[in-house]
Amino acid sequence: MIIQFKTPVQEDVVNELRQKLEALPAQVFVIKNHLAAMGVKSYDLTAKEAAAIETVTFDDPSYTLGSRQFQPEDTVIELPHSKIGGNNFTMMAGPCSVESEEHVKRMAKVVKEGGATVLRGGAFKPRTSPYSFQGLGEDGLRFLREAADENDLDMITEVMDVPHVEMVAKYTDIFQIGARNMQNFSLLKAVGKTNVAVGLKRGMSATIDDLLNAAEYIASEGNHNIFLIERGIRTFDNKYTRNTFDLGAIPVLQKLTHYPIIADPSHAVGEWDLVQPMAAAAVAAGAQGEIVEIHDDPEHAFSDGPQALKPKNYLRMTKEVFALRDALANVEGVCRD
Amino acid sequence: MIIQFKTPVQEDVVNELRQKLEALPAQVFVIKNHLAAMGVKSYDLTAKEAAAIETVTFDDPSYTLGSRQFQPEDTVIELPHSKIGGNNFTMMAGPCSVESEEHVKRMAKVVKEGGATVLRGGAFKPRTSPYSFQGLGEDGLRFLREAADENDLDMITEVMDVPHVEMVAKYTDIFQIGARNMQNFSLLKAVGKTNVAVGLKRGMSATIDDLLNAAEYIASEGNHNIFLIERGIRTFDNKYTRNTFDLGAIPVLQKLTHYPIIADPSHAVGEWDLVQPMAAAAVAAGAQGEIVEIHDDPEHAFSDGPQALKPKNYLRMTKEVFALRDALANVEGVCRD
Amino acid sequence: MIIQFKTPVQEDVVNELRQKLEALPAQVFVIKNHLAAMGVKSYDLTAKEAAAIETVTFDDPSYTLGSRQFQPEDTVIELPHSKIGGNNFTMMAGPCSVESEEHVKRMAKVVKEGGATVLRGGAFKPRTSPYSFQGLGEDGLRFLREAADENDLDMITEVMDVPHVEMVAKYTDIFQIGARNMQNFSLLKAVGKTNVAVGLKRGMSATIDDLLNAAEYIASEGNHNIFLIERGIRTFDNKYTRNTFDLGAIPVLQKLTHYPIIADPSHAVGEWDLVQPMAAAAVAAGAQGEIVEIHDDPEHAFSDGPQALKPKNYLRMTKEVFALRDALANVEGVCRD
Amino acid sequence: MIIQFKTPVQEDVVNELRQKLEALPAQVFVIKNHLAAMGVKSYDLTAKEAAAIETVTFDDPSYTLGSRQFQPEDTVIELPHSKIGGNNFTMMAGPCSVESEEHVKRMAKVVKEGGATVLRGGAFKPRTSPYSFQGLGEDGLRFLREAADENDLDMITEVMDVPHVEMVAKYTDIFQIGARNMQNFSLLKAVGKTNVAVGLKRGMSATIDDLLNAAEYIASEGNHNIFLIERGIRTFDNKYTRNTFDLGAIPVLQKLTHYPIIADPSHAVGEWDLVQPMAAAAVAAGAQGEIVEIHDDPEHAFSDGPQALKPKNYLRMTKEVFALRDALANVEGVCRD
Repeated sequence: MIIQFKTPVQEDVVNELRQKLEALPAQVFVIKNHLAAMGVKSYDLTAKEAAAIETVTFDDPSYTLGSRQFQPEDTVIELPHSKIGGNNFTMMAGPCSVESEEHVKRMAKVVKEGGATVLRGGAFKPRTSPYSFQGLGEDGLRFLREAADENDLDMITEVMDVPHVEMVAKYTDIFQIGARNMQNFSLLKAVGKTNVAVGLKRGMSATIDDLLNAAEYIASEGNHNIFLIERGIRTFDNKYTRNTFDLGAIPVLQKLTHYPIIADPSHAVGEWDLVQPMAAAAVAAGAQGEIVEIHDDPEHAFSDGPQALKPKNYLRMTKEVFALRDALANVEGVCRD
Repeated sequence: MIIQFKTPVQEDVVNELRQKLEALPAQVFVIKNHLAAMGVKSYDLTAKEAAAIETVTFDDPSYTLGSRQFQPEDTVIELPHSKIGGNNFTMMAGPCSVESEEHVKRMAKVVKEGGATVLRGGAFKPRTSPYSFQGLGEDGLRFLREAADENDLDMITEVMDVPHVEMVAKYTDIFQIGARNMQNFSLLKAVGKTNVAVGLKRGMSATIDDLLNAAEYIASEGNHNIFLIERGIRTFDNKYTRNTFDLGAIPVLQKLTHYPIIADPSHAVGEWDLVQPMAAAAVAAGAQGEIVEIHDDPEHAFSDGPQALKPKNYLRMTKEVFALRDALANVEGVCRD
Repeated sequence: MIIQFKTPVQEDVVNELRQKLEALPAQVFVIKNHLAAMGVKSYDLTAKEAAAIETVTFDDPSYTLGSRQFQPEDTVIELPHSKIGGNNFTMMAGPCSVESEEHVKRMAKVVKEGGATVLRGGAFKPRTSPYSFQGLGEDGLRFLREAADENDLDMITEVMDVPHVEMVAKYTDIFQIGARNMQNFSLLKAVGKTNVAVGLKRGMSATIDDLLNAAEYIASEGNHNIFLIERGIRTFDNKYTRNTFDLGAIPVLQKLTHYPIIADPSHAVGEWDLVQPMAAAAVAAGAQGEIVEIHDDPEHAFSDGPQALKPKNYLRMTKEVFALRDALANVEGVCRD
Repeated sequence: MIIQFKTPVQEDVVNELRQKLEALPAQVFVIKNHLAAMGVKSYDLTAKEAAAIETVTFDDPSYTLGSRQFQPEDTVIELPHSKIGGNNFTMMAGPCSVESEEHVKRMAKVVKEGGATVLRGGAFKPRTSPYSFQGLGEDGLRFLREAADENDLDMITEVMDVPHVEMVAKYTDIFQIGARNMQNFSLLKAVGKTNVAVGLKRGMSATIDDLLNAAEYIASEGNHNIFLIERGIRTFDNKYTRNTFDLGAIPVLQKLTHYPIIADPSHAVGEWDLVQPMAAAAVAAGAQGEIVEIHDDPEHAFSDGPQALKPKNYLRMTKEVFALRDALANVEGVCRD
């Protein structure tokens, strides 16, 4: 059940109602003038309540807190150097793995030059094989933090398991939850208990509803600073691209949820020379930002070299993406509502 | 085997070589300064031949004629009112089905107003159920031809089987081969024997290679006026969109083949309100044109109503698409090679 | 609308009702004590009609004629040497392509020895590339017919297009419609106008409903001698097997339709050493028959060599399949209804 | 690199070689007469080594320890009441969730009656929505342990995260790693450090190689008591079945790996009335066991009711499966090698 209160909200009515619903028992969430009571499928309003309430709906989706019914306006996440969501457009870039202090700091300068405000890099790497490079661990986090700070950038890095949450939180502005962990529900709950922003990657065979339900695990623990990352899905079409970039998911998600949608063209296609056209396509599709991988020597990258943009190609890509973003904003008389 | 001759081409060498190869026997094709001999995996050049030849390669793909190795430069199809391919951008639009003379003529005016140069409409409809509307047949072709002519538009319409090829050719500028017939090899050969342009739709589970091999069936019969249509593939992700729009296929195809690539956002997503962002994404991805469905009364359309754009939304979409196309062409110092 | 009449059926009521429904207009089909009127969504029975009728339902699926609602009992197709459907189990085998008179006759003897009653072989081959072997044409049909006759076998062969239907019908007992032509609706209608049995292969991305609607195209033209062939679907999982054998489709289809379901493990997996376990799995899943490819020299087969069973492996496979079939029939007290 | 030593193995050569390889450095594993050195791509044998060695191969797959090259003979896991792998066939059954002490004990009796030797049940449930029943936690583990012990059954239950590994290990004979956690690499490493057997479920979009690499994470930590569970993959074909049961994966895996392969028809199809034919298909395909869900009141099950077999259907299913298993073993002169 979602209740929308009339504004100005009568706080006493809200509080009384909350207590009654929690006594059912039901989990209750209140944000601004909306209240959600999970699993409640019928309720008789008192006259006092009815007078304070605008609408009641019982057909909210299972991802209630993430739905537009519960929060019609876009979520905007405010970080020291970035705003993510709403009409903002956020570029995030960096190497796949943090490889050394020197390397990540060199890459961070390039990231900044391209207009990005968030630096990415993995210190704990979820690799298909146990014998592949697994990341520099806490050293990597420190190098990445310093590289970000020296360039006035925010930082995003992957957290892979519950025992690491607290430690990673000491360094990062944004947790990344990787595609393989999208339904690692224990991890989702753990980051949900922090107040660090979370970038949640879509799993490679996750439906739209799966993704929104995974986000709900985070939100239901109290952390609402969530954005979603479309990074390609697994289909039969896997000879020339690593995954199939599901750009249609971007406007679909924007109808269903208030969370920002960021596109990851690097993982979606897996080949560097396809990243520029796909980054362009993503901004045209309405993505509120992009996250891409760069490397100055892709052949010797510790991971995912084939999809890394060299610095000059990264700069070319960001120039084009920002130009398209401007063009899109300025088409006279054209809106998409 | 593909042979690239030095220019100016020595025609006598080409002709002698052709005869020798055909005597092997092998199917031989010559276009400009390239010769392809199908299935030939080794060949010892004479001194005279060697002197006239630039390069010989034996690792051409199975879709030799469609490959960039055989024809490096883009195919450009010239029609009375349109050029398709190369740096041209071609908008195609119209109703899913030709419903009546009056209706298709009304829609054609809207099509023209949006800047399209090709009118689409189905007179023979491949419907999932035999009890659904199957099209107006030859009457539909005539109505569509007249509607196109009255508005200085070219015409594209689907041909569904071999016995209809000759008749449909009397009316149309472009044959459309539908997704369900992409590997109807008899039909591909039949349209390959005509000189009418062919728009070949990707099948819903066709790989990139399948699509290029299907095009090869047309080309190997002598018809090289071919363009390819990306219209979405079938994946697990089918609750909110009819198919998954595989925009990554556009730059992939442009690396492999010289044929123009046209995007069909209407069938790709199947929901009208997703067509505008997906049409924008397609032009940003590098599509050389789009084909979309419109209807002024979608609820009562004879077929595919949910994905049809109303006229005002069609005009808004084309305005945005052309603006993005301009922006893309004008980003200073940014190219994609 | 499906009407089930009381038995014995009052023919005059049926005929009057049929005329009234056809005048609506609606397409009407009557088989035994069931009448289907396509697209009719409401109808007021007269008292006389009501007295003669057992049940009326308006929620028939779009594949009405193929549904269990319209025909509860299994379809059984009777051929000179085989019964297909119901409690019968039919083995079909042969080379992928008819390669020569001598070869197909040699293979036919092996087919017979393994207990099969239907000989398969392609004379017109739908190949991905136009430069691959396309079949022997009408010569191939004649060789296959003779090979079948000499061994008291029925014959199944693929028909690829409308102009060939009449000619192929002169030779074969069963038309095979290939996976790539499953939605070649013109071809489906053409074979529907004959009285030759049809084996309809599931398309590689066809849903269960797509397959049943394709069968309906055949049935709605008057030919009810149809069986369905599960031959694997296209999924992401394509490194070790050509397709994914969808054995769950067998019991699903048996709930929905009365047509026999035949399994094609050869195309489903594409590797000969997986054919025996998959053939065993198919019979255990309830398939009413199998169709497999054999060759005595797979390395030099004209097509699909990797999936062909050598004669001794074919004989081993059929022995196991028939043993499992017996075991399944004889588990005391176990039924599957 | 995999080295196979001559037998009897010269332990001193093995130990010296091990030290040299570890000094490279490389991870080294020795089991019986096989040694694997991860990532070593060339090595010059001394004369003494060469004399003690049968074969050296450098083309081992990334899942070296799980490969047939490293261990040709089947892994057999020995538990108090069950042997899993090799020629053994192991039935595992139980409710999806442990719902109460009384209920799970009632179900355990049914499980035993059907010939199963392992009791399944979830105490920690990975649910798509955070508002769904999440399991009874440690109480559930205790109830399940008691229910198993009272019926002389082994116990399998899911462990969802690293912090729970130690606690769950106190109760269970087998850890289940769920499909959503198949690439939760931290969890895989954690269970790899225990000596509790592990049943690893294939992820819903995991390739065969992904699955084997996931198992390698467990094995590389020292735990080799691993079996793999095929439980269906996600495809476009999802109207009538929850997933697509990929039975072809069973013989494919048996070629590649020595780990036992268990089939989970319940999750694969998601509908109880399809479980019996699919369980039969799995045993015919060569599965070395099955894991199925049962419930005496599926409509009120706390989770996954639609796929649960009622007791009488479970007993019918196991009877059929064991009969097919016998039939398969007894087909005279038929083997599958």
